[in-house]
Amino acid sequence: MRLDRNYAKPYLSPQEYETYIEKHRAELEKLKNGGHADGMLGWLHPEDWADEAMCTRIEELAGEIREKAQVFVVVGLGGSNQGARALIEALCPQDAMPGGPEILYAALNLSASYYETLLKRIDGRSVYVNVIAKNFQTLEPGLTFRMLRHYMESRYSKEEAARRIITTVTVGDGMLHRISEENGYRYLPFPEDVGGRYSVFTPVGLLPVAVAGIHIRELIQGAVKAERACLAGGELLEDAKSYAVTRNALLEKGYGIEVLSFFEPQLEAFGRWWRQLFAESEGKQNTALFPAVCSFTEDLHSVGQYLQQGKRQMIETFLHIATPPCDRKVDPEPQMDDGFDYLDGRTFHEINECAYRATVKAHSEGGVPCMIVELDGLDARSLGELMYFYFIVCVCSSVLLGVDPFDQPGVENYKTEMFRLLKTKK
Amino acid sequence: MRLDRNYAKPYLSPQEYETYIEKHRAELEKLKNGGHADGMLGWLHPEDWADEAMCTRIEELAGEIREKAQVFVVVGLGGSNQGARALIEALCPQDAMPGGPEILYAALNLSASYYETLLKRIDGRSVYVNVIAKNFQTLEPGLTFRMLRHYMESRYSKEEAARRIITTVTVGDGMLHRISEENGYRYLPFPEDVGGRYSVFTPVGLLPVAVAGIHIRELIQGAVKAERACLAGGELLEDAKSYAVTRNALLEKGYGIEVLSFFEPQLEAFGRWWRQLFAESEGKQNTALFPAVCSFTEDLHSVGQYLQQGKRQMIETFLHIATPPCDRKVDPEPQMDDGFDYLDGRTFHEINECAYRATVKAHSEGGVPCMIVELDGLDARSLGELMYFYFIVCVCSSVLLGVDPFDQPGVENYKTEMFRLLKTKK
Repeated sequence: MRLDRNYAKPYLSPQEYETYIEKHRAELEKLKNGGHADGMLGWLHPEDWADEAMCTRIEELAGEIREKAQVFVVVGLGGSNQGARALIEALCPQDAMPGGPEILYAALNLSASYYETLLKRIDGRSVYVNVIAKNFQTLEPGLTFRMLRHYMESRYSKEEAARRIITTVTVGDGMLHRISEENGYRYLPFPEDVGGRYSVFTPVGLLPVAVAGIHIRELIQGAVKAERACLAGGELLEDAKSYAVTRNALLEKGYGIEVLSFFEPQLEAFGRWWRQLFAESEGKQNTALFPAVCSFTEDLHSVGQYLQQGKRQMIETFLHIATPPCDRKVDPEPQMDDGFDYLDGRTFHEINECAYRATVKAHSEGGVPCMIVELDGLDARSLGELMYFYFIVCVCSSVLLGVDPFDQPGVENYKTEMFRLLKTKK
Repeated sequence: MRLDRNYAKPYLSPQEYETYIEKHRAELEKLKNGGHADGMLGWLHPEDWADEAMCTRIEELAGEIREKAQVFVVVGLGGSNQGARALIEALCPQDAMPGGPEILYAALNLSASYYETLLKRIDGRSVYVNVIAKNFQTLEPGLTFRMLRHYMESRYSKEEAARRIITTVTVGDGMLHRISEENGYRYLPFPEDVGGRYSVFTPVGLLPVAVAGIHIRELIQGAVKAERACLAGGELLEDAKSYAVTRNALLEKGYGIEVLSFFEPQLEAFGRWWRQLFAESEGKQNTALFPAVCSFTEDLHSVGQYLQQGKRQMIETFLHIATPPCDRKVDPEPQMDDGFDYLDGRTFHEINECAYRATVKAHSEGGVPCMIVELDGLDARSLGELMYFYFIVCVCSSVLLGVDPFDQPGVENYKTEMFRLLKTKK
């Protein structure tokens, strides 16, 4: 994993960079010992929650589910599913999964048609359900679980339904733990000291990921590699800090948006995970970059025009995969002139690389400060490293902004009004 | 269809609104006769391209494909597929399609793994292909068509493959028309006077939409209803103009982002269509709002924190569907205390409505100027009206910004460099 800041430098002189550091010396001091702030720090040492015993337990559960289930429904919202979805979509693209059940996501919204479709898709197939909730007060998982519980108990015996429902809960405290105990559901811990958006390396993320057939130990190894590199105060921590300094120095210069771009569509769910991590951690006290995601080359034919010539308010981070998961040669076309002869003999990856390099050049010369986060490959270990790195970048960046990376007070505003409406209006 | 600007008014006083209009009187004069600019105006009268004969022809073709195909591959990128995808996802959510083939989208990117997955998904099933390209010089459809043509000719006889390939081409001019003639493919016209992002009501959008089982005549009727309401200089044109004035007056006051939000996930592809329409039409000469899309309630648990309390730089448009496509009651839970008793007897739609109203209130009071575009229902007619309305809003808005809504000069920048790399490096 490497960070390349060179394409941002024309927009942030060494003096400006140093001035920003001077101004934020107090905050940077706090980051010396591994980039952490106070607060919910259970994610800092991934092996605290994903130790040998927990990995074994999750692997056993996942093995049973992979053997018995045709469909696995993850009931979770926000931090309770984004991490797993990011990994599953990146590593097990649709229909490429070797065995194991289809994985569906529920509790994402309050649309009735969404649930009608869901029920149609699971009907007649062997179903397992994983309900993931830190506190069980959020409407979407609450209503979805009611619906699925009734469905399961109508299809299976009460005992068999209970065997097919696994919960991920705050142990010892909270409604869902009690419900699990009373009904005989097996449950895994949702750590009290880890916020939802930092939970991918805990049972929250690990069970669905293991069910998809991803090696969770390799994922954790990648995270631990990044942890050690950061906590030792090494190059990776320096990268995280200079990434955080660069993006916020540019924010102070008037840039308002960070676009995360990539050339592998399998990273789209990773983009959504990243978007939540930064939007929820940083977006408070009227500050921070607005996170947006672009999947190229598709979005070059959509938002590309704006990135090139619209209002100059974006910085862009390219997530670049050096070695793609697979490659294929362009089919030759000897019998027909289709205008693409100049691509004969090339591979898709070569062409995609040219598109990537051309885009970095065009955007950075067109007024967009660009950075590159380069990953060796698209595998569990690399993604573990990348996600942990982004935790550290996000915490560094939040500390520089003077905001708490672990709370989300603004999410309450609409909820307060919604509960008022729900409890009065009828 | 109605526009409600009330929640933006605290952020734009009547004086500021009038001052903006005064300042742009010359541009607004140009919009008197139906909101159009010069240029590629073939979309202005949807029935010019979707006349009786064309609708009949498309319905016949679609009928054949629905009868014979198990999978229908749309080979198109950007404007060549976003319109159809928006409609199909909104009106025929996955697995809810009544008969007809599964619709897959190809040529979206240059990722080899994407194509490996695609080939696996179509293998062994009855395949039809629709290649859509205005000019056939874009890499993604070019390479994808080579691959699929070889695949089809290896699976079927050359004659049968030709019967299963339908192209949408610039007639009389261009490579793909010639290829279609030489190989005996049936083809439909890609109008010369309609740009890709304005092409949903032409054969470009209509064939895939008809294959999905959507009534294209109702879609066109909706568009024509909006056309008449706009061209007659009626209320809808006034709505479009005041929408355009409001968003650009707020841009001048320092807002840089417009978020399109909705509470029906079926609108996600509509969001991508909208994003391209505005990013490509307006994003030039260093101006315009950056378009972003939020699918609620999911994104309330992701970007919601930022919208509520992040940097105050967003305006938000809520796309509100008054009557949802379906509804369901919350399952009662008499035997168990799960903390959601206060929702007993409610329907999902009622709860979703409370979430919607609470979000509008929370965001608009939290520093986000909000507008509401209200649609009666989610059906072909309403969406036809909505998409045409957005064409007019986009043109009005571009004219106010002083940019050409029909070109996309910035898309060439990366292409020029990419072609240089492709033709030199090896």
